[in-house]
Amino acid sequence: MVTEIAQIDVKPGMEAEFEAGVRKAVPAFQRSKGCKSVKLVRSVEKPQRYRLMVQWDTLEAHTVDFRNAPEFQEWRGCVAHTFDAPPYVEHVEEVFQAF
Amino acid sequence: MVTEIAQIDVKPGMEAEFEAGVRKAVPAFQRSKGCKSVKLVRSVEKPQRYRLMVQWDTLEAHTVDFRNAPEFQEWRGCVAHTFDAPPYVEHVEEVFQAF
Repeated sequence: MVTEIAQIDVKPGMEAEFEAGVRKAVPAFQRSKGCKSVKLVRSVEKPQRYRLMVQWDTLEAHTVDFRNAPEFQEWRGCVAHTFDAPPYVEHVEEVFQAF
Repeated sequence: MVTEIAQIDVKPGMEAEFEAGVRKAVPAFQRSKGCKSVKLVRSVEKPQRYRLMVQWDTLEAHTVDFRNAPEFQEWRGCVAHTFDAPPYVEHVEEVFQAF
């Protein structure tokens, strides 16, 4: 299991439209093989910065299967017009949950 | 509830020592008022990069109470020698968990 962290800076004033776009794209993630969960968080220090946290069964479920699927285009169609810059994406694996 | 994301780049070869240091510091977080959970994740693309994800009741529980408490010094004492650069810290709030 890996978690994709997509850090997305949104154009000033487009925050509500971005959030609505993410909600609209949820079914595309739900349909995607290996996609386990989707959570959206927002930075306190930089309110135009969001992070979409997506759990995938494997790295390739995101980087190969999803990115080459029509669902990726659907996701981008819902939100890309609100991006202030290309998203910065990293994947992380859990080392431990202490408590 | 806010989540602190502390992004920490560790010196090459110090990964195991850093992870052991975080485990050693867990009781200091558990003793800290308003600290709800601690999770350590590691970047797939940059294996020297970790993110400590800490849930706090409030922003101030971290930025004021914890940072001025002896537990902060205890945490730093366990891990600071393994840091390759100062940690980059941001706080995030959940917008929604879609599924």
